[in-house]
Amino acid sequence: MSPTSRTTPAVPCPPEEVRRVACVGAGVIGGGWVAHFLARGYEVTAFDPGPDAEVRLRRLVDAAWPALTELGLAPGADRDRLTVTATLAEAVADAQFVQESAPESLELKRDLLAQLDAATPPGVVVASSTSGYPMTDMQTTAADPGRLVVGHPFNPPYLIPLVEVVGGEDTRAEAVAWTSRFYEVAGKSVITMDREVPGFIANRLQEALWREALHMVAAGEASVEDIDASITEGPGLRWAFMGPCLTFALAGGEGGMAHMLDHFGPSLKSPWTRLEAPELDEALRDAMVDGCEREAGARDHAALVAERDRGVIAVLRATGRLPGGQS
Amino acid sequence: MSPTSRTTPAVPCPPEEVRRVACVGAGVIGGGWVAHFLARGYEVTAFDPGPDAEVRLRRLVDAAWPALTELGLAPGADRDRLTVTATLAEAVADAQFVQESAPESLELKRDLLAQLDAATPPGVVVASSTSGYPMTDMQTTAADPGRLVVGHPFNPPYLIPLVEVVGGEDTRAEAVAWTSRFYEVAGKSVITMDREVPGFIANRLQEALWREALHMVAAGEASVEDIDASITEGPGLRWAFMGPCLTFALAGGEGGMAHMLDHFGPSLKSPWTRLEAPELDEALRDAMVDGCEREAGARDHAALVAERDRGVIAVLRATGRLPGGQS
Repeated sequence: MSPTSRTTPAVPCPPEEVRRVACVGAGVIGGGWVAHFLARGYEVTAFDPGPDAEVRLRRLVDAAWPALTELGLAPGADRDRLTVTATLAEAVADAQFVQESAPESLELKRDLLAQLDAATPPGVVVASSTSGYPMTDMQTTAADPGRLVVGHPFNPPYLIPLVEVVGGEDTRAEAVAWTSRFYEVAGKSVITMDREVPGFIANRLQEALWREALHMVAAGEASVEDIDASITEGPGLRWAFMGPCLTFALAGGEGGMAHMLDHFGPSLKSPWTRLEAPELDEALRDAMVDGCEREAGARDHAALVAERDRGVIAVLRATGRLPGGQS
Repeated sequence: MSPTSRTTPAVPCPPEEVRRVACVGAGVIGGGWVAHFLARGYEVTAFDPGPDAEVRLRRLVDAAWPALTELGLAPGADRDRLTVTATLAEAVADAQFVQESAPESLELKRDLLAQLDAATPPGVVVASSTSGYPMTDMQTTAADPGRLVVGHPFNPPYLIPLVEVVGGEDTRAEAVAWTSRFYEVAGKSVITMDREVPGFIANRLQEALWREALHMVAAGEASVEDIDASITEGPGLRWAFMGPCLTFALAGGEGGMAHMLDHFGPSLKSPWTRLEAPELDEALRDAMVDGCEREAGARDHAALVAERDRGVIAVLRATGRLPGGQS
């Protein structure tokens, strides 16, 4: 909490009452946000300084609309409720929520967020789609940094549910809570982080995998096609519905995560990736075991196995593949 | 090729004619292999020195059978075609293919593979389910190392299609080719590696993600539940059918992987994970771009986007989730 935050106005309307959303930056991510908010029935104003911005944006929304229609549009959802403005100020003038999706440059985002703060009605939350910059580093020049929040989506924002929400040191706690609630109302799946970590959670994880993939290609250890196939034919099938921790817990059999860690603990030190493994001390071991048990809840091993199997079969069916189909 | 390999007999029967498979080690992975081979119509002999091995194995097979039945059993598939033997020698005496799935210990696997080589009919391939040990390190004490191959599955082997196949320095090239073909006939999706890399491909990738996850939990940056949700609600939905490289190529918009690398190149150096990023030089950049173009083949950007969207929707449906369903 910054001292100034007490003097700034509260967030104007409850998340449930938001009707007008502004999207600044309308590339792949910003345009995806526009499509999502339109499909959820919001009135959307958009601004992007790029050439042909409106043409590209409407093309992106048109390309996404059949999928969104199939998923079921919210009452009143209409592509005609999109207004592309000539200036940033027009886009945010009446906005009840602002989503910033500019190119990934700290300098650029710092300046843009300060501009947005100056042009947006007092107290209205301005969320950044940054893929990894901490808000603390981006909010430094804004007059009211308290309303600036990270709302990190995944591509495409109109289909991938996850949004990671986290504030910076000067962000008001109410602004973070409001943003998380707003995204939920807008149909997203929200993880609210109580501390800033560069890359947040999902990007740190997928980035670790991505960096190892880049190293493997650079070293001639695997082709791009091998890397992609190794995920889609392997772990990726499980990750669509069961995360890496619970998945590995099942690899421990009835002994679960505890057995898995005790069994694979030694090979955790093997040179299996360029990322060094952490020391698997009691505290970490227990944290993993307890977390998996919390996640499993009432589901015992047999129930989790059955759930995983049903999930893999459903995913294989849904994506037109069935193992053993060939023979 | 080792000098000895010329004097050893050729692989006895074509992959298509294999009827009898031996599985040595019948835990989660070995038992999963047993279930897979039974479902594909093979006669399976299994040996595991553990207490209650047969009870546990039959329980695992029974638990998997409904899923395998739903997927469609091969002609003649029958749980009664499983014979659990009292000794390792009995299990492999008449085997036309042997799958070793012992605990992950280099010493143990080295000794076991030598024993299997001594007890298995000449030339019959013995494949190891090792999660990451190079065969070169495991085949050192076998009389005929030429028939020893890595056949690394994913859990559960009866549902996840991927098997990574790679030989060691002393493995005969024909044995590697035979094994890859055999797994294909047996209904698996095969990646054949032409060089040994500890952890192979998929495990290096998921292990990099896993290690970052362990670091985050150890540092109190995220809970186990957050980590799992960040994947299942985010990147995991895409990875079930589109790998990380092609997925990131789409994040580059119409500019594809080239734009994505040029755009995110700088933040590739951000401290987004504990794994250092490689130097994104021209060679690596081009390798990634060319690989994605090869993978995309005739599919242009619009076609890939439509495919991804259909895939995500299918996966969301299949796993009982639809974004925006709440609002």
